[in-house]
Amino acid sequence: MVGVPARVLGVDPGLVATGWALLESRAAAPAVVDCGVIETSAELPLEARVHAIYDGLYGVLDKHAPDLLVLEGLYAEYRFPQTALLMAHARGVVCLAARQRGVTLLTLAPAEVKRAVAANGAASKTQIQHAVQRLFRLAALPRPSHVADALALAFTGYMRAGGRPG
Amino acid sequence: MVGVPARVLGVDPGLVATGWALLESRAAAPAVVDCGVIETSAELPLEARVHAIYDGLYGVLDKHAPDLLVLEGLYAEYRFPQTALLMAHARGVVCLAARQRGVTLLTLAPAEVKRAVAANGAASKTQIQHAVQRLFRLAALPRPSHVADALALAFTGYMRAGGRPG
Repeated sequence: MVGVPARVLGVDPGLVATGWALLESRAAAPAVVDCGVIETSAELPLEARVHAIYDGLYGVLDKHAPDLLVLEGLYAEYRFPQTALLMAHARGVVCLAARQRGVTLLTLAPAEVKRAVAANGAASKTQIQHAVQRLFRLAALPRPSHVADALALAFTGYMRAGGRPG
Repeated sequence: MVGVPARVLGVDPGLVATGWALLESRAAAPAVVDCGVIETSAELPLEARVHAIYDGLYGVLDKHAPDLLVLEGLYAEYRFPQTALLMAHARGVVCLAARQRGVTLLTLAPAEVKRAVAANGAASKTQIQHAVQRLFRLAALPRPSHVADALALAFTGYMRAGGRPG
């Protein structure tokens, strides 16, 4: 990719809730164009849930045509290995949708994202929510935290690619 | 599903190699119709690898139109958590392909599969390969072990649905 990507999509995959947020490059600073969460019911079988996540994200890619999709890289260890395994099913179909739509994928270390938005590589989920609210001057705290994480990912990916924070 | 499924596909997902095997119900015993392995290069990015697995498996579903797709259930703990996380990316796109093609999915506990083909719930990978070779009177040992595991899954799924071992 040459230059600053015009449209950056952050995605925080999860089987229960997959957060996403789209930033667009503007003259002064990146702006939040759209964000949302794809939720799936625990009553559905796994294959129906990954299908819903795939369909939902594919729709977002179709509508917003981002230049870059930013994901959190995989940790070395997870506190809840079973949750991580299910997250990885969701992450797999997110990667697939990105590839099918020809969107470049960037993965970032969690600590880099936290440092970029909260100036603290070990910030809590709540701290990230507040930092993201301030950063984009949002009227309300971004909820659920998956959306805040997606905004943080998109912002960090945008900065990494040479964008200005505003 | 009513009655014995005519065509059962076993799938052993992995990022490096995804084994698959199709059994067909015959008068005397189930027969191996086709089997194979979808391999992906470690030099490719993750999104290209899950895309290759998805495409490969989608092609198998398209060609063979199975009634049932059998996967191993998730363990409570994995010896290699990082490998398991990558496996789960592959498993996610396998689930997606099954759902998109309307194929019923069955997950089986690893110990149940090992007991069904090797009469030993703690059989090793090599023991499973030999047991599967005997079971289907194969000329050679099924290789890689992912294919043997896929055959074992398909056989156990077939038996569970009321098929006869022959």
